[in-house]
Amino acid sequence: LNQKKFRQFEAIFHPKSVAVVGASSNRMKDGAIFFQNLLNAGFKGKVYPVNSAESEILGLKSYPKVSAIPGPVDYVLVAVPARLVLEVIEDCVAKGVKAVQIYTAGFREAGTQQGRWLEEEIVKRAQEGGFRLIGPNCLGLYNPSINLNLWGLPPAEAGSVAIISQSGGVAGRATLAASARGVQFSKVVSYGNGADLDSTDFLEYFAADPDTRIIGIYIEGVRDGQRLFQLLQQTGKTKPVVVWKGGKTEAGAEVAMAHTGSLAASNHVWEALSRQAGMTKVDNQDDLVGTLLAFYYLGEFRGRSAGILCGLTRGGGGESVSATDTCSSLGLTVPPFSPQTRRKLAAILPWPGTILRNALDVSIWKEAETVRRALDAIAADPGIDLIIICERIHMLLDRMPKEAVQAINQVFIQLRKQQPKPVVVISPPGFPTTSEQWQIEQELAAARIPVYSSLEEAAKAIARVSQYFAWRAGLNED
Amino acid sequence: LNQKKFRQFEAIFHPKSVAVVGASSNRMKDGAIFFQNLLNAGFKGKVYPVNSAESEILGLKSYPKVSAIPGPVDYVLVAVPARLVLEVIEDCVAKGVKAVQIYTAGFREAGTQQGRWLEEEIVKRAQEGGFRLIGPNCLGLYNPSINLNLWGLPPAEAGSVAIISQSGGVAGRATLAASARGVQFSKVVSYGNGADLDSTDFLEYFAADPDTRIIGIYIEGVRDGQRLFQLLQQTGKTKPVVVWKGGKTEAGAEVAMAHTGSLAASNHVWEALSRQAGMTKVDNQDDLVGTLLAFYYLGEFRGRSAGILCGLTRGGGGESVSATDTCSSLGLTVPPFSPQTRRKLAAILPWPGTILRNALDVSIWKEAETVRRALDAIAADPGIDLIIICERIHMLLDRMPKEAVQAINQVFIQLRKQQPKPVVVISPPGFPTTSEQWQIEQELAAARIPVYSSLEEAAKAIARVSQYFAWRAGLNED
Repeated sequence: LNQKKFRQFEAIFHPKSVAVVGASSNRMKDGAIFFQNLLNAGFKGKVYPVNSAESEILGLKSYPKVSAIPGPVDYVLVAVPARLVLEVIEDCVAKGVKAVQIYTAGFREAGTQQGRWLEEEIVKRAQEGGFRLIGPNCLGLYNPSINLNLWGLPPAEAGSVAIISQSGGVAGRATLAASARGVQFSKVVSYGNGADLDSTDFLEYFAADPDTRIIGIYIEGVRDGQRLFQLLQQTGKTKPVVVWKGGKTEAGAEVAMAHTGSLAASNHVWEALSRQAGMTKVDNQDDLVGTLLAFYYLGEFRGRSAGILCGLTRGGGGESVSATDTCSSLGLTVPPFSPQTRRKLAAILPWPGTILRNALDVSIWKEAETVRRALDAIAADPGIDLIIICERIHMLLDRMPKEAVQAINQVFIQLRKQQPKPVVVISPPGFPTTSEQWQIEQELAAARIPVYSSLEEAAKAIARVSQYFAWRAGLNED
Repeated sequence: LNQKKFRQFEAIFHPKSVAVVGASSNRMKDGAIFFQNLLNAGFKGKVYPVNSAESEILGLKSYPKVSAIPGPVDYVLVAVPARLVLEVIEDCVAKGVKAVQIYTAGFREAGTQQGRWLEEEIVKRAQEGGFRLIGPNCLGLYNPSINLNLWGLPPAEAGSVAIISQSGGVAGRATLAASARGVQFSKVVSYGNGADLDSTDFLEYFAADPDTRIIGIYIEGVRDGQRLFQLLQQTGKTKPVVVWKGGKTEAGAEVAMAHTGSLAASNHVWEALSRQAGMTKVDNQDDLVGTLLAFYYLGEFRGRSAGILCGLTRGGGGESVSATDTCSSLGLTVPPFSPQTRRKLAAILPWPGTILRNALDVSIWKEAETVRRALDAIAADPGIDLIIICERIHMLLDRMPKEAVQAINQVFIQLRKQQPKPVVVISPPGFPTTSEQWQIEQELAAARIPVYSSLEEAAKAIARVSQYFAWRAGLNED
């Protein structure tokens, strides 16, 4: 990415002013929701509503068109019916804007000649006007560093994860789900049909972006597959790239055509690509979020040997067996503890029914201090690379005072702080998950402990991180 | 199963009196918890605490030993240290009881000669005394029809699902999780080491039990593999049997040895077994619960073609693509709607951005009446066997008044009632799940709509039910 193009993208992702065409006082209009979200989020720049039928919207003067706005306009969000979009684009050319996001659907993906023609026209006009297009049929940008939050996401600090998503729904939901587990984002983009800017452009930018450390992608199709593959290969050498491909099955590919007008690359091309080292393939949204979570919290983790603690809520024997099965079959190992560790554990947990091996079953709940000593012994074992705690917070809360549960979780937080091996907590949803459970999970996340609702999800994600960094380390040694 | 043996099991599962050896006023003792749970649950029979150190426990006279109890004693739960168990068993022989459950651990699974000897001794004495043993190292029985609830499970009506589990933790957690989704149980048994009564005995009984329609099994190892395999094959012809094998990996098998003293059957034997038609193999606890849920709610379902509704919370395009991928790759099909259905949908949903094909993306939220009309059109399509609704209740509740969300869910409930095709709802957990979400999910379950937290889980489970009943139908045709 040359300096000029990089600066162009920087400007697109950091607009100083945003116009919302289709903003309205009628809260049922989509433009109204975007506009209100932007104001609510406290966007750090100027916001202009554009609607010729209203003079003032939420206390701001409304303009009849973009070119009627007195100051410069960097970013224009278009949320008016498809038949009006061309006129808006022409007005943006007249105004001289930097980027236009078209939320409106009804272009190439509609499968009509009219839709295809309209999409080609707007791209042509944008090129003539010297600005870039995002969309159509998309939710556009999210940049928490300037509170550019069009989607009504909860307020959040900026972080190091970027998502490129062809689907707005996936972009919004994946960002929300990962945020709920403490992940912070540099930028997210939903680009829909990708008529002008496509996945390749955004990937090129995020690869160069110093604020972005980890990249997640949801993609249905791409114009230039060759270029995307090269970029993925190149980017993977310095940043983890997690890719979820939609439309992998024949039936799914047909829906993708109707969704973003994407001619999905044939599946065997994607399969071949995914066998390339350096790219991390995932299969669904939970998988994408879970894997980003592991990359976010585990650092440059290359180990595979899990030390597992089960049975905090009694009846941990079956859990020990199945946790061992799960980790062993999903790419981790559950090695025997060293003789020294076993001796330590025998002294700490002398009760019958306690399985003194990996996965350790503490079996009958002990006070926080006993749990702490057992975990310290496991963490000190040189054969163990990371610690997985099969906690069931909702069951603990059913059986113990809240303070006792908090005390146990403080043990996990201290363990994370006082030694270098990553700590991962498994906490299935309750029936339902209470705010007490949620609060504890938030405290764990704040201490850089990723919380997963199932061990399957966690083991898969951890194994991927390990596999990626082991590959990258090998690369550097060559 | 001959009549005599069937009646013996009926008596074991329907005790008229229970003695808890190790009951106590000290609430930290395990015996105290069992005893209190039994009283709290309102067990429909006599309850006797046995503890020579106390004269009265929770208002009931405490007996020094089982043989000191004046009336007949059917079921004895033993929760005293291992070294005292033999003496208790001898006292049970003297008393003449029908069954003894040994909760205590420290027998064969301890891996010591002493443990093995002790286990053999108690089996010998029980045989001499003419009664059966459950355990040792187990949580014993759950029978909601007589409120025999030792585990502190929430009160529940009796139903048609039975679980046989070698692990008490798995038995308790799977029962709790399935109950939370509306499943009702006939009986559940945790049998631990299976020193006397083993998985084969319980399977034989549940196969004959008219109250049991569906059987779930968690098993680590078995004494007589040949007999188990024959029973599974035989039982599968009349009742679905869902089997989760713990200790499948080498590492997991070693833990199983330490947990229940089980010599896990070699994995290739289990793999061969699982290829047999008629047995439904699952891989973990969520999988077991999800599959029992599908068998419980779907009836004798043999179809494969899902009609899917997405996009209730907007941004459903990516969801449509990925839902189609997920179902297509996990054993279901997502066929195109008939031309007639497409015409109907085009009239009901004329907005751009709506994907008028299967998986239908209603894209931008419409009022309940529009959703109802769209679902009616899908349900009427002769090519569709069941309806899957990708709902995101937590997101709906974020965006709409609770009453509007309830109105939409009423549409699903009415759909379930007014036509014969099964309806399945996908509702991921919220951040956290609110009581409003939980209440709606409970209402859906009460209307016989299974609720899954992920489509992956649902699709896998539905495909298994379909596969099983298609196999069984073929069997009857031969």
